[in-house]
Amino acid sequence: MPMTREEVTSAIIDAKKARGLTWKAIAAEVGRHPVWTTSALLGQQSMSRNEAELAGALLGLDEACITALTECPTKGSLDSDIPTDPLIYRLHEISQVYGSTIKALIHEEFGDGIMSAIDFEVDVERVEDPSGDRVKITYNGKFLPYRKW
Amino acid sequence: MPMTREEVTSAIIDAKKARGLTWKAIAAEVGRHPVWTTSALLGQQSMSRNEAELAGALLGLDEACITALTECPTKGSLDSDIPTDPLIYRLHEISQVYGSTIKALIHEEFGDGIMSAIDFEVDVERVEDPSGDRVKITYNGKFLPYRKW
Amino acid sequence: MPMTREEVTSAIIDAKKARGLTWKAIAAEVGRHPVWTTSALLGQQSMSRNEAELAGALLGLDEACITALTECPTKGSLDSDIPTDPLIYRLHEISQVYGSTIKALIHEEFGDGIMSAIDFEVDVERVEDPSGDRVKITYNGKFLPYRKW
Amino acid sequence: MPMTREEVTSAIIDAKKARGLTWKAIAAEVGRHPVWTTSALLGQQSMSRNEAELAGALLGLDEACITALTECPTKGSLDSDIPTDPLIYRLHEISQVYGSTIKALIHEEFGDGIMSAIDFEVDVERVEDPSGDRVKITYNGKFLPYRKW
Amino acid sequence: MPMTREEVTSAIIDAKKARGLTWKAIAAEVGRHPVWTTSALLGQQSMSRNEAELAGALLGLDEACITALTECPTKGSLDSDIPTDPLIYRLHEISQVYGSTIKALIHEEFGDGIMSAIDFEVDVERVEDPSGDRVKITYNGKFLPYRKW
Amino acid sequence: MPMTREEVTSAIIDAKKARGLTWKAIAAEVGRHPVWTTSALLGQQSMSRNEAELAGALLGLDEACITALTECPTKGSLDSDIPTDPLIYRLHEISQVYGSTIKALIHEEFGDGIMSAIDFEVDVERVEDPSGDRVKITYNGKFLPYRKW
Amino acid sequence: MPMTREEVTSAIIDAKKARGLTWKAIAAEVGRHPVWTTSALLGQQSMSRNEAELAGALLGLDEACITALTECPTKGSLDSDIPTDPLIYRLHEISQVYGSTIKALIHEEFGDGIMSAIDFEVDVERVEDPSGDRVKITYNGKFLPYRKW
Amino acid sequence: MPMTREEVTSAIIDAKKARGLTWKAIAAEVGRHPVWTTSALLGQQSMSRNEAELAGALLGLDEACITALTECPTKGSLDSDIPTDPLIYRLHEISQVYGSTIKALIHEEFGDGIMSAIDFEVDVERVEDPSGDRVKITYNGKFLPYRKW
Amino acid sequence: MPMTREEVTSAIIDAKKARGLTWKAIAAEVGRHPVWTTSALLGQQSMSRNEAELAGALLGLDEACITALTECPTKGSLDSDIPTDPLIYRLHEISQVYGSTIKALIHEEFGDGIMSAIDFEVDVERVEDPSGDRVKITYNGKFLPYRKW
Amino acid sequence: MPMTREEVTSAIIDAKKARGLTWKAIAAEVGRHPVWTTSALLGQQSMSRNEAELAGALLGLDEACITALTECPTKGSLDSDIPTDPLIYRLHEISQVYGSTIKALIHEEFGDGIMSAIDFEVDVERVEDPSGDRVKITYNGKFLPYRKW
Repeated sequence: MPMTREEVTSAIIDAKKARGLTWKAIAAEVGRHPVWTTSALLGQQSMSRNEAELAGALLGLDEACITALTECPTKGSLDSDIPTDPLIYRLHEISQVYGSTIKALIHEEFGDGIMSAIDFEVDVERVEDPSGDRVKITYNGKFLPYRKW
Repeated sequence: MPMTREEVTSAIIDAKKARGLTWKAIAAEVGRHPVWTTSALLGQQSMSRNEAELAGALLGLDEACITALTECPTKGSLDSDIPTDPLIYRLHEISQVYGSTIKALIHEEFGDGIMSAIDFEVDVERVEDPSGDRVKITYNGKFLPYRKW
Repeated sequence: MPMTREEVTSAIIDAKKARGLTWKAIAAEVGRHPVWTTSALLGQQSMSRNEAELAGALLGLDEACITALTECPTKGSLDSDIPTDPLIYRLHEISQVYGSTIKALIHEEFGDGIMSAIDFEVDVERVEDPSGDRVKITYNGKFLPYRKW
Repeated sequence: MPMTREEVTSAIIDAKKARGLTWKAIAAEVGRHPVWTTSALLGQQSMSRNEAELAGALLGLDEACITALTECPTKGSLDSDIPTDPLIYRLHEISQVYGSTIKALIHEEFGDGIMSAIDFEVDVERVEDPSGDRVKITYNGKFLPYRKW
Repeated sequence: MPMTREEVTSAIIDAKKARGLTWKAIAAEVGRHPVWTTSALLGQQSMSRNEAELAGALLGLDEACITALTECPTKGSLDSDIPTDPLIYRLHEISQVYGSTIKALIHEEFGDGIMSAIDFEVDVERVEDPSGDRVKITYNGKFLPYRKW
Repeated sequence: MPMTREEVTSAIIDAKKARGLTWKAIAAEVGRHPVWTTSALLGQQSMSRNEAELAGALLGLDEACITALTECPTKGSLDSDIPTDPLIYRLHEISQVYGSTIKALIHEEFGDGIMSAIDFEVDVERVEDPSGDRVKITYNGKFLPYRKW
Repeated sequence: MPMTREEVTSAIIDAKKARGLTWKAIAAEVGRHPVWTTSALLGQQSMSRNEAELAGALLGLDEACITALTECPTKGSLDSDIPTDPLIYRLHEISQVYGSTIKALIHEEFGDGIMSAIDFEVDVERVEDPSGDRVKITYNGKFLPYRKW
Repeated sequence: MPMTREEVTSAIIDAKKARGLTWKAIAAEVGRHPVWTTSALLGQQSMSRNEAELAGALLGLDEACITALTECPTKGSLDSDIPTDPLIYRLHEISQVYGSTIKALIHEEFGDGIMSAIDFEVDVERVEDPSGDRVKITYNGKFLPYRKW
Repeated sequence: MPMTREEVTSAIIDAKKARGLTWKAIAAEVGRHPVWTTSALLGQQSMSRNEAELAGALLGLDEACITALTECPTKGSLDSDIPTDPLIYRLHEISQVYGSTIKALIHEEFGDGIMSAIDFEVDVERVEDPSGDRVKITYNGKFLPYRKW
Repeated sequence: MPMTREEVTSAIIDAKKARGLTWKAIAAEVGRHPVWTTSALLGQQSMSRNEAELAGALLGLDEACITALTECPTKGSLDSDIPTDPLIYRLHEISQVYGSTIKALIHEEFGDGIMSAIDFEVDVERVEDPSGDRVKITYNGKFLPYRKW
């Protein structure tokens, strides 16, 4: 019986734990940014054959897992539309509270269109701060103007 | 009959349009960042009396609107949990695709806890790029470790 | 009291009816494709000032309606996620029945990525057929490969 | 224990992968269009005995899978009404943004009725374009006028 | 301010009540079956100009209502997917209890395809019965085989 | 481990397929109408011991399955409230489009009350028609007047 | 503009309050049980002309309200499927906790069928009790066996 | 692997069936009312050790099942908020149709408060009736006045 | 036209704002705890005639508002089941994260039963703390054991 | 196959039962408050290595379970947004009835901001009372003011 993509993801998380690896260390081996690499390993991106083999060698994955990493997944990493996990819920809350503001300012700056979520990068960083370190998440996507015809 | 907060927001948007103002220009007058100022004017933050009067004078708002800007609003700017507007939906999609990755990397870096959405700032910027300018959205929130007791 | 975008749309539909115009005739006046023009008049696109004035003159719209046509709307023309109107429901059913097929074939042809719904055109045509004329709807969107970083 | 239709679909996808086949190659063997063939193999159509045997021989399916391909399936290929996968979500977004427009133009051209989703064909094509190749999806369905009695 | 279709429907129901008419009497005047006529008056079908004028004359409707009856409506007469009214809920319950049976028997008799809900008639009749009269509802729709291509 | 009612239903469908039986043939053996018999075999009705044994003998069911057919099931044959299968969805669409009409006409004919879905029969028939055969579904339920006390 | 049924209900509640009447006193005047009378006045039953006139005279209702009380209403008195009001929620909770028990015991006593909610009466009584008075709600409905055919 | 409470419930239903017991007979052995006993056996109440052993001996349950019957369960016996089973749905329909009436009459009789669903009993009885026997369900709960402080 | 309870609540909030009152000051005048008084003024409790008159005099409410405060309201102060306002959402999150813990500990301490939400008090206090003041919310409800019968 | 966190939780509950331990006794061993310890064991908190080993030794857990207790879990202990279990539902009801009051009073006392659910403690206590003991639940969270920038 072949593995589902969710089972591949579980196997990867278990291998990472068993070998005491970090997401950043795997990303360094693969030669990609930690966010992209983590999202690929969590089943949201498709790796090249070479990237999958590098990750597979480090994690000790079998051929089926390595192949799975090269395929186009059905994306969407959350169980429900409104996540119950507090960390992930905060992203939802930010969209609720600041979504209309972000829309207003993008339209003021660029006109009608959107920030692409495909030609798009994410970064997650620690910002040191004496009153408590901060998390900085950066979204960077190409502006796509609405086509007129 | 007093105005609801939604009616205050409509009145502000109409006044802004009638006077040909931009969100950035109002923010400059108020002395706050454009994202914070826009979200306050769209009913998601509470201004100080002074900030509300500066905004009110520029926009020609009446006393009821100015007072409304100083009150703690019921926050949440979207009509539904899964927004239909494509620009705002992309924020939801990013949480769906990258949410588990962001959770994994914050925990790897900081341990158990969350990025605050209250002690929190957003920025929206244009990044010039020869293959098409890009939108950069930055979330910056204090890391809050889970309390143990 | 200013008009909401829904009221602008109602006013446009009433003016079209009162003057006996067709969507195609308005599109010809505006100089755009009927699908784009209709979707703009139904509150889903933003017109240039010139386009809005041409449409406004033909339909006899007032200045507030003409201005509204030039603004970036909150998009989404349906009342609910699963439409009850049978004609619109068929589009939902097609996504249900053929969605996984379309995903499989786009990935086979292009690799990981999507068809843009922003850099995108729709056409609706009549195809004559002796056993009953047919409706042909064409979606044409730029392929956007997933960015790796 | 007999296989569910979902297990038949999994077995087909695994066989296709193991034998290095493409959907187009299977369709050529079956003698049907790639969209129809793919949707039949993904459990949304019923094949004739001969078509199922041709597909089965190429994929090395057992008798139970071949028989399953000839039965009338319970159709609907998506897990939820609002798909989270970005490629499939775009079809939902197109219905949200352009659905009322498509309804208006079909009624203007044909009167009251719908485009059939049963007497219906889909095509998916690549359109070469110097500024980036495009995906072209064509829906072609018989117009069905509402019966009056 | 023009009337919405819901307001037209309310006006028709009020006029019917004020004039002491029955749905059957209006249908006889219009020259159509009571089910079709009632559904048209309740905003689910589009009448010819002549039918709308006959109904309008009998009910004393103004020109705006008569025109509204000739337009293609947004169909769907219920407030929610699962109706709370007990009479209408029973139709939902019948689909829940007998839906899989009806699917199995149509496929056994006709092969893969559906009963059209567009090339379709409904009848509602009283069947006298000594142990209590019965309601007989008949659905009659063209069988549409799934197209293969 | 005893079988769930869903597993009994699967076993029946498999036995029917393996023996090349039709629903109508099983109904003839059981001595009941095909709709009732099919719905009982699909887990929506309870058979008498004798009926269950006749069906069991024809299908080669074991004692546990035969007993299960005599028990009062938890009824409801669909996975969700709004079915995605096109054939079954049409029943939902008919309720949406004609539900208010059916309610109006039953009340006009009978007064306040409902058509029973318990003291109730369904029939599914083929109606030959030169322009394409038709499906005729008949609902026949006792009228139940609302009790006053 | 005619009143909706909800507006009729509001008018009745206001008249009752203004005249200092109780539901029981109105029921005594109408000559019906307090539960039935209250549910009719709250828009869930249809009164005879005589009953409506008696209630109307006591409450000082106008002709439009009296007529509305004689019509078959769209039933369903709650805003949502899961009520938020604690008193009404308890009815929902009882169905959640005791629903499967009630089903099991009715089937054990009567066989396959249901308790009618149409040929049905409700009573609400106070039961004096030294440790705190109790509410007793009685449901009394005809058993309807499932029809076999 | 220990049993879930759902598996305990299944085991009890199977044992009851295998031994030809009725819910009433088990209740007599346990020394409790049939409704309470059935709801405890269906996983909605917690038995004393002695009650669980009496039930266990009669049904032939193992120690794990007997222990499970003494634990505080997670209550809620239905799969969904709006049940599809017709018998259980009628309880939901009664709340929809009579809920506002029951609220009005309890407040008229007792003032602000609720009928407890915890200090609460249910009874299910057969009422013989020449025109068809009737089901009588009695809810009896302590009135709890809202506390003021 | 009489006021709805929501309109009474709006009138109270406006009067409070216009007169520069605090919730605590109104509670002191009424002679009740601030939480109870605020919830009564926000439409969730029923006041005695005397309490309503004291609040009404302080706020300058008219007779209709004062009467409304004495009636049993339809309770439930939130727009949706999952609140979008961050402050109120945190209460929902606490139930999600700590709900199963609270259930386990109440059962360990008290056995099977619940904390009443009717014979129940809430308090909200400020706790001074050098690392940032804290909010302390106390729920205090009578333990209600499940009745056995 | 590694255990899911839900399986770890089940194993802990079974071990606790088999060894006759209470949540309070485990907490005493771990050296943490019973609420925090219980929520950690139920999969809502992450323990230090030492705490996990103390709990593991007392409960006889294997290494995999002990490791799982040290990891950051996906939080959210309830199956659905509106819980059906009566004890947990009461927490939801309290938010519905008192949520707007709590928001009003926190804003009156502290200004715009929230009570943290992360820098947060819960306590559950028994309060002896001659008219029936009471449950006292205390929420204690840091006030977080909304950041302005």
